[in-house]
Amino acid sequence: MRENRHVAALKADLLFTGARLATMAGRAGLGVVEDAVVAVADGRIAWAGARGEAPPVDAAERFDCAGRWITPGLVDCHTHLVFAGNRADEFARRLAGESYADIARSGGGIAATVRATRAADEDALIAASLMRLDALLAEGVTTVEIKSGYGLDEATELRQLRVARQLAARRAVSVAATYLGAHAVPPGGDRAAYLDLVCERMIPRIAAEGLADAVDVFQEGIAFSAEECARVFAAAGTAGLRVKSHADQLSDGGGAALAAAHRALSADHLEYTNAEGAAAMVRAGTVAVLLPGATLMLKEERHPPVDAFRAAGTRMAVATDLNPGSSPIASLRVCGTLACVLFRMTVEEVLRGITIEAAHALGRADRIGSVEAGKDADLAVWSVETLSQLVAQIGPSPLFARFHQGVRA
Amino acid sequence: MRENRHVAALKADLLFTGARLATMAGRAGLGVVEDAVVAVADGRIAWAGARGEAPPVDAAERFDCAGRWITPGLVDCHTHLVFAGNRADEFARRLAGESYADIARSGGGIAATVRATRAADEDALIAASLMRLDALLAEGVTTVEIKSGYGLDEATELRQLRVARQLAARRAVSVAATYLGAHAVPPGGDRAAYLDLVCERMIPRIAAEGLADAVDVFQEGIAFSAEECARVFAAAGTAGLRVKSHADQLSDGGGAALAAAHRALSADHLEYTNAEGAAAMVRAGTVAVLLPGATLMLKEERHPPVDAFRAAGTRMAVATDLNPGSSPIASLRVCGTLACVLFRMTVEEVLRGITIEAAHALGRADRIGSVEAGKDADLAVWSVETLSQLVAQIGPSPLFARFHQGVRA
Ligand SMILES: [Zn+2]
Ligand SMILES: [Zn+2]
Repeated sequence: MRENRHVAALKADLLFTGARLATMAGRAGLGVVEDAVVAVADGRIAWAGARGEAPPVDAAERFDCAGRWITPGLVDCHTHLVFAGNRADEFARRLAGESYADIARSGGGIAATVRATRAADEDALIAASLMRLDALLAEGVTTVEIKSGYGLDEATELRQLRVARQLAARRAVSVAATYLGAHAVPPGGDRAAYLDLVCERMIPRIAAEGLADAVDVFQEGIAFSAEECARVFAAAGTAGLRVKSHADQLSDGGGAALAAAHRALSADHLEYTNAEGAAAMVRAGTVAVLLPGATLMLKEERHPPVDAFRAAGTRMAVATDLNPGSSPIASLRVCGTLACVLFRMTVEEVLRGITIEAAHALGRADRIGSVEAGKDADLAVWSVETLSQLVAQIGPSPLFARFHQGVRA
Repeated sequence: MRENRHVAALKADLLFTGARLATMAGRAGLGVVEDAVVAVADGRIAWAGARGEAPPVDAAERFDCAGRWITPGLVDCHTHLVFAGNRADEFARRLAGESYADIARSGGGIAATVRATRAADEDALIAASLMRLDALLAEGVTTVEIKSGYGLDEATELRQLRVARQLAARRAVSVAATYLGAHAVPPGGDRAAYLDLVCERMIPRIAAEGLADAVDVFQEGIAFSAEECARVFAAAGTAGLRVKSHADQLSDGGGAALAAAHRALSADHLEYTNAEGAAAMVRAGTVAVLLPGATLMLKEERHPPVDAFRAAGTRMAVATDLNPGSSPIASLRVCGTLACVLFRMTVEEVLRGITIEAAHALGRADRIGSVEAGKDADLAVWSVETLSQLVAQIGPSPLFARFHQGVRA
């Protein structure tokens, strides 16, 4: 800090010193600042940058990073972490030779999770979800998106969304809640009647009660058609909610383009998305959320067109897709590693993909995802020599400290 | 326990009750016992089985498992965890387009780890290794194998082996130390002179000083030939040490058959092993140690012939191969998941592969790897509903308690 006694000192609650900083500011790159300081006031970043350029700071408290790295708190922008039960035995049965169809016929698959989630009261759901949430927080996550979609009836979908809000009250984390009523037709339910419920009753109510920040759909042959998804998107728009989409995961259904046409915050999965879909997403500002956990666990050979996204300039985020079936992975770092290994994303792309690009996928890039003045002071301090270690190694979390809105958590 | 006052009670230091037990006893299966008790005396298992069949026990202490699962402590039978430095930036450079050859030419690859390990004193090596070891222990590991091979000179190889012994003194864990002098020709070194050093000086000295339990080689076009490995095996035999082999990883060099011909404890990797190799291993009692971490991180398409091993009746173990280059994965559970997903091993095969079969791979199946009377009381207690969760989910360790030789650790 310059010793300039004629300039009024910046008042700060907390001053990080001795840091190596990756701001993630700008359209590309990590925004590395060696020998950085970060000043926090009122839960926000008041100043961040090179020590030599910093204004004088009058800080109530100091945090000496001793050469450790600071990044923005991580953002997991696609999870289904509020559910009950587990489907580990289905994993074992599939490896022992049973087909997915056999398992579904015997009451397994998503129906098993819907049954368990409907049967769980709010306290049970909170307890089960906190274990998964805590695993993410231990890796430096400060914002997590959470979808409903395992109730598929009015009471349980609302309970899932209320639990998502409750989690934000129980832990130092920001939660983006997403209504995914259009996840599947409820077991034994009527398709048309269920879509009426989703569009005419649930979406307006959820918007009015502020229970969700966005509305999501699963557009796929085995789930909902383009026409059905367009109806859900329209209902969301009428209710003033932004949309997201599970698109083109198992086939090219034009999901990315449809999502873009509805100015979706993100289109997610995208294994079968074509170059036009990628271009439409750029024009609409729709982020590509890539989910390599499901690719691994399902041993899918088809990977999202990362080269096409690069060529088009589509923003790419990476998330866990944490769920009990296709991606039972409570680790954003492992999913980052998988995005590198399986999708050949670069380390830089992945580190942006779990911070600033993930913030864009939630429509929150004005508040989180980078270390810039005015944003929430959501910060992760890492005991690593190089940031590559965050995704080049699988094992214990190298997180040294986590700050949410300026408070060590 | 039966109330039979005429039978002398079994004296125990510790009695586990209310457990669901997977003994891993026998040639296949998990050996599940519902409502089990395990009695421990003098660090060993005094009795294990169904409560209804247990003798009367006079226990100094009780541990109520409250329905939790007990398994043998996990055994990681192939690691290179004693090293200095990290190669995370090489991971980033490869993804950014640099070739492995370019990285090697600029001093990267194994040469970088050899340089860092030679420069690290014993205390620094212990500190770096403890972080990795602690990660394994947090997942229920009670025995770990550790190889040398990053010194490639007399002083550093001996230091690595001494550190392996030191780790066993610092933590509640059994360590099997393996001399892997024949890992690579030292950078700038003379091939013939180095092999003379390994066979004529190092192996006899290491055996005499009790610094290693076995001798390992890397048989591959880029490492040592079959003839060179046979010479190392012969030297080990003369010194009274059992052998192991990194075999057939990148090409079919007949490595499995050569290892079997020398009655190796294990042959490891085995991506290119053929059916004759598998059959030779069965006859010799050589265990196939499968290492899916490297398969993932190198994105190798070629997988070990699990079906051939099944058909031949070859024992299959699974290990981390924890090392700074091809498998920077400090998680035996993640490697178990990868063995299921990538190699299509069943959950049962993997759970045996990280316990009893791994014990066989270390020549220690008489002492560890299953919950049977007379063996070390190395036990893991898990907060899971089903043991499938140990490998069907990636995330925080569900370990509830770990016991090494009867002591909670
Ligand atoms: Zn999803
Ligand atoms: Zn190895």
